[in-house]
Amino acid sequence: MKFQLIAQDIRTSARAGILSTAHGEIETPIFMPVGTAGSVKAVHQRELETDIKAQIILGNTYHLYLRPGIPLLEKAGGLHKFTGWNKPILTDSGGYQVYSLAENRKITADGVAFKSHIDGSSHIFTPESVVDLQRAIGADIIMAFDECTPYPCEHAYARSSLELTHQWLTRCVDRMKETTPYYGHEQALFPIAQGSTYRDLRERSAEFIASQGQPGNAIGGLSVGEPHEEMYAMTSLVCGILPADKPRYLMGVGTPANILECIALGVDMFDCVMPTRNARNGMLFTSRGIINIRNEKWKDDLTPLDADLGGYASTFYTKAYLRHLVINKEILGAQIATLQNLTFYLWLVGEARRKIREGTFTEWKDKMVKIIKQRL
Amino acid sequence: MKFQLIAQDIRTSARAGILSTAHGEIETPIFMPVGTAGSVKAVHQRELETDIKAQIILGNTYHLYLRPGIPLLEKAGGLHKFTGWNKPILTDSGGYQVYSLAENRKITADGVAFKSHIDGSSHIFTPESVVDLQRAIGADIIMAFDECTPYPCEHAYARSSLELTHQWLTRCVDRMKETTPYYGHEQALFPIAQGSTYRDLRERSAEFIASQGQPGNAIGGLSVGEPHEEMYAMTSLVCGILPADKPRYLMGVGTPANILECIALGVDMFDCVMPTRNARNGMLFTSRGIINIRNEKWKDDLTPLDADLGGYASTFYTKAYLRHLVINKEILGAQIATLQNLTFYLWLVGEARRKIREGTFTEWKDKMVKIIKQRL
Repeated sequence: MKFQLIAQDIRTSARAGILSTAHGEIETPIFMPVGTAGSVKAVHQRELETDIKAQIILGNTYHLYLRPGIPLLEKAGGLHKFTGWNKPILTDSGGYQVYSLAENRKITADGVAFKSHIDGSSHIFTPESVVDLQRAIGADIIMAFDECTPYPCEHAYARSSLELTHQWLTRCVDRMKETTPYYGHEQALFPIAQGSTYRDLRERSAEFIASQGQPGNAIGGLSVGEPHEEMYAMTSLVCGILPADKPRYLMGVGTPANILECIALGVDMFDCVMPTRNARNGMLFTSRGIINIRNEKWKDDLTPLDADLGGYASTFYTKAYLRHLVINKEILGAQIATLQNLTFYLWLVGEARRKIREGTFTEWKDKMVKIIKQRL
Repeated sequence: MKFQLIAQDIRTSARAGILSTAHGEIETPIFMPVGTAGSVKAVHQRELETDIKAQIILGNTYHLYLRPGIPLLEKAGGLHKFTGWNKPILTDSGGYQVYSLAENRKITADGVAFKSHIDGSSHIFTPESVVDLQRAIGADIIMAFDECTPYPCEHAYARSSLELTHQWLTRCVDRMKETTPYYGHEQALFPIAQGSTYRDLRERSAEFIASQGQPGNAIGGLSVGEPHEEMYAMTSLVCGILPADKPRYLMGVGTPANILECIALGVDMFDCVMPTRNARNGMLFTSRGIINIRNEKWKDDLTPLDADLGGYASTFYTKAYLRHLVINKEILGAQIATLQNLTFYLWLVGEARRKIREGTFTEWKDKMVKIIKQRL
């Protein structure tokens, strides 16, 4: 997996690059729509490609493991073939959902035992098994098994958790070496830096994962409730230690403003459920700010959702029409809002990339952050 | 509104025609997807046009009156502009939903008083008011206000109901004459024949509505639980009396096989919630038969939904993938299944039309009915 830097901002740590995978090139900085259990909710695969212009999507190993299950994915020839999405896929390790969704979870040095949130059945994830699962899913980018600490978190817990995450990383790296790509195409491992909001732990973790020499690196354990300033401080610290010639992925972040700020700190890749989940509740991200389409004020607003953005959902449908659909729980409401939000997120990172290349990123970012944060 | 017959089958009463409206031509026989409250559930407007190839859709006056409400539709310039659907729209009179959904309904000679199923608020529909509502919605085809009798229904009740429906029709016809199109484009009234499953009442009703000389005529009160043979007998009887040079619309019908049989009896237009509603429960109509995608037998079937049919949903997505989505209540499952079913329904009436023009309708219909009825 090749990562080529093509431009760097002079005043910030923002950079533009190209990550080459077996399923195509990814222009960074990039946002990855979340395709939970084999579907980015409420959008067709062709819409992801043509309207949203997604270049890579994320799959959740925990969900895919439980449903449809690995045997069916193997029979299909992997998640790409099963879903018909033929561009790159990154899978998480399943750890995050085990902690947030599963029941009766028990963490040991070996791994995590848990019960399915669907039927209560018992399962065990280990560093080795989650590598195997992600190989079988066919992910282009495989995430290491880690423990994502909650916020706030005692220093002692954060430290011992970090040590476990590092042990698990070593086992993931070993497992990657012992095994081969499942469907012939290249699969790369990204380690994850943890350490909660403690500078010493974050430094130690960043140094440890940097030393592994993997094709890319991730920052986990942020956007879990800490103040934005803490998130930015930790991201900046870790980005400064991670190798500059490898892509940096900040997991689970965030709002459009968070993304622009973290691009400025040197992050190349993002994922978040916010544009898709919030869409289904009627929250729209637009190039002029945030809209709660359920508000009375949009009731008879017959202007397009986001005329400046362009694209189908943004220009074809009006605010009054979408409000009517969302209020009345019409499926099309979720479809339109999701299309709007993801189109906006991909547009935003694309614009950031363009501004980095043009050398005007900082001014643009400072102006844009104010606009996209405001509630209309 | 001009209706031109371009072909008639020799062995049956099937015919092919072109109905010209202010929003474009409709090639008959045609199926009209149901767009309840301003949305054909789970499909984008461009999908309706490009993938499904819908030529006219149906709106429900009862739903549109309650939500988003007539004032907003008027402000938008009618339902076409509000939704962005720029091809023909037919609206029902609201009567059917008043009987099936509303609470505390009370029928008098003047009209129907009812309480909204949403908030219990009180409303009255009269023949005059539903014409006005449909004018304000901007429907190309306006349906007369009628009472749809249940099945079974006593002869005495069916007769007195029929008399009321005929009185109301006269008032609708008068109201149409007293008023003008709301947005400049032509709006045509279709009367509705009732009479339950009684030959004498059906004859009387068909003769009465035929005598009104309106641009099209409809057959109501069927597909409400009666045996298919009764439905066919009544449809045949009424089609024989309705003028041949006007389109005939059989309301609320039906299965793909019902539609082919009723085309053979001389029906030109159909609507039904079956392809959309059943899609959301995982029932697929395909060119090879009916599939309940929830069945275990499709679990690892990696073949396309309906390769022979062509089109995006039918060829791009597999049965195993759709089953996974439907079982897990993914919105995309409803989107794919709806696209499949409506594409199939429109393909079916298009094929029927082609066979009528080629003079091979009967053989094709007899063969096709067997295929599309079978459960795969």
